[in-house]
Amino acid sequence: MIPHDAHLQIGSLLFEGLDQIDLTGPFEVLSRIPNSTYRLYGKTAEPVRDLKGLRLTPDAALSDAPQLDVLHVPGGFGQEALMEDTEVLAWIRQQAAGVRSVFSVCTGALLCGAAGLLKGRRATTHWASFHLLSYFGAIPVNERVVVDGAWVFAAGVTAGIDGALRLAAELRGDEAAQTIQLDMVYAPEPPFSSGTPETAPPAILKQARQSVRELTARRERTARRIAAKLGIAVPVTGEA
Amino acid sequence: MIPHDAHLQIGSLLFEGLDQIDLTGPFEVLSRIPNSTYRLYGKTAEPVRDLKGLRLTPDAALSDAPQLDVLHVPGGFGQEALMEDTEVLAWIRQQAAGVRSVFSVCTGALLCGAAGLLKGRRATTHWASFHLLSYFGAIPVNERVVVDGAWVFAAGVTAGIDGALRLAAELRGDEAAQTIQLDMVYAPEPPFSSGTPETAPPAILKQARQSVRELTARRERTARRIAAKLGIAVPVTGEA
Repeated sequence: MIPHDAHLQIGSLLFEGLDQIDLTGPFEVLSRIPNSTYRLYGKTAEPVRDLKGLRLTPDAALSDAPQLDVLHVPGGFGQEALMEDTEVLAWIRQQAAGVRSVFSVCTGALLCGAAGLLKGRRATTHWASFHLLSYFGAIPVNERVVVDGAWVFAAGVTAGIDGALRLAAELRGDEAAQTIQLDMVYAPEPPFSSGTPETAPPAILKQARQSVRELTARRERTARRIAAKLGIAVPVTGEA
Repeated sequence: MIPHDAHLQIGSLLFEGLDQIDLTGPFEVLSRIPNSTYRLYGKTAEPVRDLKGLRLTPDAALSDAPQLDVLHVPGGFGQEALMEDTEVLAWIRQQAAGVRSVFSVCTGALLCGAAGLLKGRRATTHWASFHLLSYFGAIPVNERVVVDGAWVFAAGVTAGIDGALRLAAELRGDEAAQTIQLDMVYAPEPPFSSGTPETAPPAILKQARQSVRELTARRERTARRIAAKLGIAVPVTGEA
């Protein structure tokens, strides 16, 4: 826990085709952390669209970001287009070298992996990409939120809310996180128990896997290429 | 449940000073409802800022909206500034007259109340404004999600996610909602049980009430004026 008098610079990476709630779920928490400045950074300062079309506007371009104390990397389909983007990967790498915490949500973990930051790290990501973590040298942990030292990983999509509250507690203590949780009235009551591969009706899971099959295969080819570049022995694994 | 071959026009009201997750939580669900068009409508098509500064951009102005099938009204501090805005209230009223469903999140319920739409309706809203519902003739129900005929009310902030999934099930059936829930990996694990007035540590609740005291008092004065206009006997009530 960081002393309350230490101001925190918190920043999220914003990119075309992200899954908006990977950013806006954590936003609700990160924007309420006491004594902090929270801003969104894009490749340029121009608006981007999330994978379902929500227009989101960065506060500044990557090159205008100060050294952050907390770096938040969301995911979503658009992550794939950045996996070999040297500018974005270098920014993530440079920021990560100086931050207090990195907070990865969903397939944001793959971006962190492509930046070479996951070697030997306990990590999680979206269930459809979980089998890809080992290409980046990570130790996959099938939990909704994984805390590994200065890193917090949230699994898929809405897990970013749970992860952000954990991060808030790490940064400012339990009471600060509980205050934010009450502000957000976060006492969820999902109407179904269909939120994970383990609990969803089998037919629904099958269809969900089918709908991301092509993207997952593309992500795997990319991960293989990156593993080779990072000098990581390509693991013998299949989709869970 | 509406036949799958009936296309749905779904729209959210977007306004300055809303609480972004009142919109972006439901966005994740509403943007995935099969065979639908989902758009955001603002007083103008210009970007607005949420109460913590997130810039969100409407797809079109209110006057360019078609008759919607589903109207979503979010809340947040900025709702107060619209409580006597005849243009916005008339739009809500006109849309509500022709929709299949109205979906109110957080203090969006007060806007619907100001539009004269809550008389005799079972409704809920954010805990800090719950005692104001009766000024609009509503029957307050202290539940996270309240379904009253064609209306779905979500209580505070993140309750919009639960409410949107209930709405998706009402519109397209349980399987459609379960598919969306898996897409969102919505199997929440809040790290604390601080999400409601009933469960939050008393000191944290006290401070939270304190921090909204002025706004709540202002909201009550407004509610009183509107009750008089609507011809509703001002109830004898106090903040819960």
